[in-house]
Amino acid sequence: MSMTEDLAADAKANTKPEGHFTVTILGAGSATPMLGRHPTAQVVTYDHDHFLIDCGEGTQFRLIERKIKPGRLQHIFISHLHGDHYFGLAPLLSSLNLSGRTEPMYLYGPRGLDEVLTTMFRVSDTRLGFPLHFTVVDPATPTVLVDLPQLTVESIPLEHRITCSGYLFREKRGKRKLLREKLPADVSVAHMKQLKAGHDVIEEDGTLLYDVATYTTPGPKPGSYAFCSDTRFSEPLIEWVKGVDVLYHEATFLDTHAERAGEVFHSTARQAASVARQAGVGRLIIGHFSSRYKEFSAFLEEARTVFDQTMLAEEGRTYTID
Amino acid sequence: MSMTEDLAADAKANTKPEGHFTVTILGAGSATPMLGRHPTAQVVTYDHDHFLIDCGEGTQFRLIERKIKPGRLQHIFISHLHGDHYFGLAPLLSSLNLSGRTEPMYLYGPRGLDEVLTTMFRVSDTRLGFPLHFTVVDPATPTVLVDLPQLTVESIPLEHRITCSGYLFREKRGKRKLLREKLPADVSVAHMKQLKAGHDVIEEDGTLLYDVATYTTPGPKPGSYAFCSDTRFSEPLIEWVKGVDVLYHEATFLDTHAERAGEVFHSTARQAASVARQAGVGRLIIGHFSSRYKEFSAFLEEARTVFDQTMLAEEGRTYTID
Repeated sequence: MSMTEDLAADAKANTKPEGHFTVTILGAGSATPMLGRHPTAQVVTYDHDHFLIDCGEGTQFRLIERKIKPGRLQHIFISHLHGDHYFGLAPLLSSLNLSGRTEPMYLYGPRGLDEVLTTMFRVSDTRLGFPLHFTVVDPATPTVLVDLPQLTVESIPLEHRITCSGYLFREKRGKRKLLREKLPADVSVAHMKQLKAGHDVIEEDGTLLYDVATYTTPGPKPGSYAFCSDTRFSEPLIEWVKGVDVLYHEATFLDTHAERAGEVFHSTARQAASVARQAGVGRLIIGHFSSRYKEFSAFLEEARTVFDQTMLAEEGRTYTID
Repeated sequence: MSMTEDLAADAKANTKPEGHFTVTILGAGSATPMLGRHPTAQVVTYDHDHFLIDCGEGTQFRLIERKIKPGRLQHIFISHLHGDHYFGLAPLLSSLNLSGRTEPMYLYGPRGLDEVLTTMFRVSDTRLGFPLHFTVVDPATPTVLVDLPQLTVESIPLEHRITCSGYLFREKRGKRKLLREKLPADVSVAHMKQLKAGHDVIEEDGTLLYDVATYTTPGPKPGSYAFCSDTRFSEPLIEWVKGVDVLYHEATFLDTHAERAGEVFHSTARQAASVARQAGVGRLIIGHFSSRYKEFSAFLEEARTVFDQTMLAEEGRTYTID
């Protein structure tokens, strides 16, 4: 898929059909602050649900800019405790509290995140008006953290200076496609929903009215998105992200700084592309560029020599997954 | 001084003469995040030294925007531990550390701030490359915290839901004014400096060459700036900020919400102006407006009915103190 087609798909995706599955990059910078770049934060959107991954300083403002209501978040995933990946979390939670939130929030991240938050809330004499459920992510073993009707989210161990996990979003089997022309004109909406969900329609007396095999075809292949930040080149990761539709992989450095990358447990654009190629993913998004680089076309060129379907993480842009 | 004259003075002040004393508002919003408003942060500049007061989320980006190099900060003052006044501090210190800072940093704030920072640095396995000297501010008694050759900074107890202090910057006696026309044309720069500093010029053999009384007049009145945020109307405060040149006082609400203001330990524009009038200050800057207000002219009108020399805190604007 070319960049142009991809953008067209993005524009079309704004109509938000059922099964809509996207990721929006809120920040693609690395730790050093620069005007016009923001630290890591992404929103995965599935239908009407938003999932926040990482929450660098200022993320709540980026959400408001993208017209994503922070109050609608229910799940937040933090990769690791370097500040550029979570310093916006306490501000976000504080604002949600001020706004009168009562719905629970589910938070996933490394051990220690809970201690930071409880310390901050204690010294400000803050009592959250909503339940904050925190799950410590196992840093060594991929684990399913969220299991919703349409989607699962599992952790992926990464290799960084401190405990760090990626997150893999997998759509469950998509809804089946209805063969509308085979059905009578007066078929009820309830029956159509039943068929799309993969259930035969059987009358109370046991008569088979419509069967799934005749009136539907399999739905689209379930989409999947893997978020991998921050990590040095990781062999096991290739297996864990095998065949995902879209892989986000950090590319802090260019290959000319490969040695430096290894020393500080980061990756180069070439290494990110190598993971993508070996894992046979659909598309690769690279980001988390070091502030030493003023522009990023060299990252794209370097990655594409290894894996053609590479895109740059552009702040504010939404990428389709399905 | 009218607003116009004041702006002209600001423009002139950009040439930064010796003894230049200003405050720059980086954020004048209150706790609820809004696009285009930022949480509290101010920079007091004296000659070439910058002092940061409060450090809401994103302050490091506001500093960069104003072309104030974060690396040049040596003293940071935090009023209290509600997040909108300090959530930008750990990000700022982390960035300074990343940039290789080795010079000491002096931090002043309430007890608990040290615990938050040490917890955050511990979980990220961060070892600061510079000494961070933390002074717990006495919440009950005004205390001199900084005593530099040209300037002192003392704390001012405020009345908020949690321990909160304001900060009062007082210029020491300004340099004396040289009566250049009375001195010979070939007077040396060293002798002029000596006279401006208030010392007679005496030759090695004891002969009085130039005396201070003859060749100088007293310098300008020393400037003073008081930062008061957040607080409900406070009677003792009037005494502590008596006669300062510029008073910043929070005005979260309008008088129509005076009851609400009292409940949440905040002030109205009228109350801020009443403190300014009773304390006989030169000028008043009001800020920290609640997000419930879409524009602020009513704050200015309300305050000016009590104290004419009131200005609104405008983000990005620099106000002269001397």
